[in-house]
Amino acid sequence: MERRTEYCGLLTEASVGQTVVANGWVNKRRDLGGLIFIHLRDREGIVQVVFNTEFSEEAFRIAETIRGEYVLQVKGKVVLREANQINPNIGTGTIEIEAESVEILAKAKTPPFYIEGDLNVSDELRMKYRYIDLRRDKMMNNMKIRHQTTRTVRNYLDDLNFMDIETPYLTKSTPEGARDYIVPSRVHQGEFYALPQSPQLFKQMLMGAGFDRYYQIVRCFRDEDLRGDRQPEFTQVDIETSFLSAEEIQKITENMLQKVMKDVLGKDIPAPFPRISYDEAMNRFGSDKPDTRFALELIDMNEFAKTSSFNVFKATSENGGQVRGLNVKGKADAYSRKDMDNLIEYAKQYGAKGMAWMKVEEDGLKGAVAKFFTEDSEELIRLMDAEPGDLLVFVADKKEIVYQALGELRLKFGRDLDLIDKSQFAFVWVVDWPLLEYDADAKRYTAMHHPFTRPNDEDLAKLADHPEDVYAQAYDIVLNGYEIGGGSLRIYTREVQEQMFAALGFSKEDAEEEFGFLLDAFDYGFPPHGGIALGLDRLVMLLAGESNIREVIAFPKNGKAFDPMTNAPSEVSAAQLKELSLRIASLD
Amino acid sequence: MERRTEYCGLLTEASVGQTVVANGWVNKRRDLGGLIFIHLRDREGIVQVVFNTEFSEEAFRIAETIRGEYVLQVKGKVVLREANQINPNIGTGTIEIEAESVEILAKAKTPPFYIEGDLNVSDELRMKYRYIDLRRDKMMNNMKIRHQTTRTVRNYLDDLNFMDIETPYLTKSTPEGARDYIVPSRVHQGEFYALPQSPQLFKQMLMGAGFDRYYQIVRCFRDEDLRGDRQPEFTQVDIETSFLSAEEIQKITENMLQKVMKDVLGKDIPAPFPRISYDEAMNRFGSDKPDTRFALELIDMNEFAKTSSFNVFKATSENGGQVRGLNVKGKADAYSRKDMDNLIEYAKQYGAKGMAWMKVEEDGLKGAVAKFFTEDSEELIRLMDAEPGDLLVFVADKKEIVYQALGELRLKFGRDLDLIDKSQFAFVWVVDWPLLEYDADAKRYTAMHHPFTRPNDEDLAKLADHPEDVYAQAYDIVLNGYEIGGGSLRIYTREVQEQMFAALGFSKEDAEEEFGFLLDAFDYGFPPHGGIALGLDRLVMLLAGESNIREVIAFPKNGKAFDPMTNAPSEVSAAQLKELSLRIASLD
Repeated sequence: MERRTEYCGLLTEASVGQTVVANGWVNKRRDLGGLIFIHLRDREGIVQVVFNTEFSEEAFRIAETIRGEYVLQVKGKVVLREANQINPNIGTGTIEIEAESVEILAKAKTPPFYIEGDLNVSDELRMKYRYIDLRRDKMMNNMKIRHQTTRTVRNYLDDLNFMDIETPYLTKSTPEGARDYIVPSRVHQGEFYALPQSPQLFKQMLMGAGFDRYYQIVRCFRDEDLRGDRQPEFTQVDIETSFLSAEEIQKITENMLQKVMKDVLGKDIPAPFPRISYDEAMNRFGSDKPDTRFALELIDMNEFAKTSSFNVFKATSENGGQVRGLNVKGKADAYSRKDMDNLIEYAKQYGAKGMAWMKVEEDGLKGAVAKFFTEDSEELIRLMDAEPGDLLVFVADKKEIVYQALGELRLKFGRDLDLIDKSQFAFVWVVDWPLLEYDADAKRYTAMHHPFTRPNDEDLAKLADHPEDVYAQAYDIVLNGYEIGGGSLRIYTREVQEQMFAALGFSKEDAEEEFGFLLDAFDYGFPPHGGIALGLDRLVMLLAGESNIREVIAFPKNGKAFDPMTNAPSEVSAAQLKELSLRIASLD
Repeated sequence: MERRTEYCGLLTEASVGQTVVANGWVNKRRDLGGLIFIHLRDREGIVQVVFNTEFSEEAFRIAETIRGEYVLQVKGKVVLREANQINPNIGTGTIEIEAESVEILAKAKTPPFYIEGDLNVSDELRMKYRYIDLRRDKMMNNMKIRHQTTRTVRNYLDDLNFMDIETPYLTKSTPEGARDYIVPSRVHQGEFYALPQSPQLFKQMLMGAGFDRYYQIVRCFRDEDLRGDRQPEFTQVDIETSFLSAEEIQKITENMLQKVMKDVLGKDIPAPFPRISYDEAMNRFGSDKPDTRFALELIDMNEFAKTSSFNVFKATSENGGQVRGLNVKGKADAYSRKDMDNLIEYAKQYGAKGMAWMKVEEDGLKGAVAKFFTEDSEELIRLMDAEPGDLLVFVADKKEIVYQALGELRLKFGRDLDLIDKSQFAFVWVVDWPLLEYDADAKRYTAMHHPFTRPNDEDLAKLADHPEDVYAQAYDIVLNGYEIGGGSLRIYTREVQEQMFAALGFSKEDAEEEFGFLLDAFDYGFPPHGGIALGLDRLVMLLAGESNIREVIAFPKNGKAFDPMTNAPSEVSAAQLKELSLRIASLD
């Protein structure tokens, strides 16, 4: 085998007249009798190879036997194509190789689906034959985007004196957070490691050790039910620093993302990114991860509702609920009564009991509920900034439901009405988060980020008695409506950490049992520290213009956490289980 | 809190006259009455801070309360020290900071062991307080060496168009190789994922997909009993390429290692590295991972033995065994009879039934067995290149035992007699490996590397009937007697892979069941490919001059696969087990 002189896709007119060696797969083959054309494909693109008895009788005879996806080595002279033969669809379309020799390195059966173009096959089939699916230009490119992203991130952080330090994958199972994947220990029978949901405590320990600036691009694991942007294992750009303020950490992060956008997509994104408080994000967008590529903001109708002649509004207000609306400008005509019924159903999926709507016409409000607004219809029109042609929708409910239903309706209008400029990359920091949220099922408070998030100093006194009023030094970075990362300053004293565990309902004993080593560590000189973790899969998904992280993971699991290529998970031998002292209960 | 202007350890005379802000830990404190000196430590080193009521009354009062390992922020002017105050033991020894203000960021209890100097505490205690252990200069430096190593590796491979592609950690359990760590599936009850022992098959799939050049710095897992250079999880620099020869892959690897040596240690290592065949390595060094920093090679005495008057030699030869010796030049006097008895015991640990030895004196051979060499003593002296003062040792046994016992004796002599130049880094390629080795316990052949290693084309015909005579396109890279990496060209056709599985004793059904997806993949156009995997922990251990990989892993497990810091593994809740349909047999 000779040595390749250049990737197929990188050959240029500079090689014209030279003899080259190319390796690749047969993407397409056309046999015109005495002339055979082959599109030879490698990871960088496609080049055309021409076979003809004039160039080589032997090569031509071999080319007659060649089929799609054969792996070839071709040697020949690069020539310019005739003007009328130029192919603008491939990068090398002005040249071709005249084959002087060809070697079939491997034969191939007909693949289960085409390599080219948009696929119309099931995800299951694509995953079973992932090595074929990944040959497609789009998947190849997604993997390149991922590589360039991590490369930029690493270089940026290396240059800022961050140290890449590996933390263990066989760790301790702890409560709080999602469900752990656990790993039985053979040496310690009946005991288990847990795969980390994040290296949170280890990176904090590294700060305690004085590493000052740490990063790691690290796999994390959550045994949760899957959806579009969730996988059993996912990758995090994990960052932690000592002695920095939240703003300094945010600046490092946004400069890193600016560099990623520039290196990967050639886009200049202005910084600093906009900052919006959690409360403002909820009030304006009904979401803690607002898609700021379009307006259509929520309108606060709470004052109005207090005295509204529409009893639903008034009663909601009196019962401590909220009333907010959306003004879908100029789109009244775009929605039929049936469409509106569908929207009501949509709102109900998010917990709303209903959704009031009206259309604004020249002579006032129209729609089923319009008649209830008597004296206050003018005021409503003023507050909603409404004009003829506008569609107004309202949700009156508990605060959380109003946010969620209107937030989702806003996104739906955005998509359905094409309000979103897809070429835009809208980064926004959501800051000033509540420390805790009340979990009605568990009847206790849980951490909005995690139990190691530092409360605002001025709120500390409230932690015991009014935990709901405590805000945290936490920040999320949001891109186009996706949370792509979250971080915070961390607690670094035993005293505050113990208060936090108490607020979460831990007994002193449980806290000691689960997190004693952290509390102990705080006794030995722990620096103020904080950091952030970015979801690499989601970030790359957005950079690649995909809507599912599976498209940017080389070997993902399907919706049932199963890999159709290798058939994992699978049964293991009785001997393996015996060594671990494990029995499968359903088989007992 | 103000912003640090520079790391403590990086302050230089260039800052003299400037006011700086430094953060760090109190490494040492001396109170001389009206003058307090503090050595402030961060990851880059130590700087001295001077407190004095003249500089600041308030800072001095605070300094009076400060103890070891407190975390401080200090602000003050950098001044030159008096000539007689210069401290050559710290990098900043010619300067100090006159403290104008100090803030105690965190207090600290007395740590369980000293941060400075060589430690004389148990590994267990060091691991329990790993965040303190890592504060030591040596550990800090080991982590820096590790970071610089991976940084160099990544930059080198990135620049050569290698793509960093992540492969799954939740994979399929397969036979062959070491014991898997397994992970119970909640969705597929009674089934398990396995943590990968290496991403071998996934990286081969990436070659099938056409990625051409892949790398990953990736965690691997083996549930084996531990020793000095083994951990339950370890890190691999994993590389795979298509269309390259073994020599081309070796060249890429050795240039990478050259760059690592230069970047990390400033050492120029000549390339190409020496190459030695497996057979030659065994014959000369009794090891497939020879430490070539010193000679003391094995001497082949098989011809001699055939006709030796020493019956042990002759009988061994007649029974198909081997006889080899070592000439420990000029060291006869260094070993007493008791020392020799100890060496015999040492040889027995490696399976030898015994070890013959003689000393060479002016008037001939001395020692218990000398008398058996009658006519052939001169010949023995000639073959052993012996002179008066030499110590000769021999092992006569089965081939494997001769190699192992003499190989280990050679290393022991090397260490005990200080024959090894510790400043040297001796890289060597061991090439031309046998494909298989016979496993007497399992009564079948097993793969010397792994079942995907490509046999030499010319040996293929022998695979069915004379598998022991088949050599492989495999290569190990050895540094100072440690195997730091191994690789090979891989099988890339169904036909050869099926032959290989058959040679390993797989039925066609089992091969299909376990590796069907690989065999299928070969049907769809698989390129010739090969690669290598380097053990990062071992490489960094050698770069750092350590003898245990625990010293270069931030959070290692102890000899019982246990983490004394977090207490992993540990029991999990009954609810967790129930969700997984698992029962612990010993509790049934």
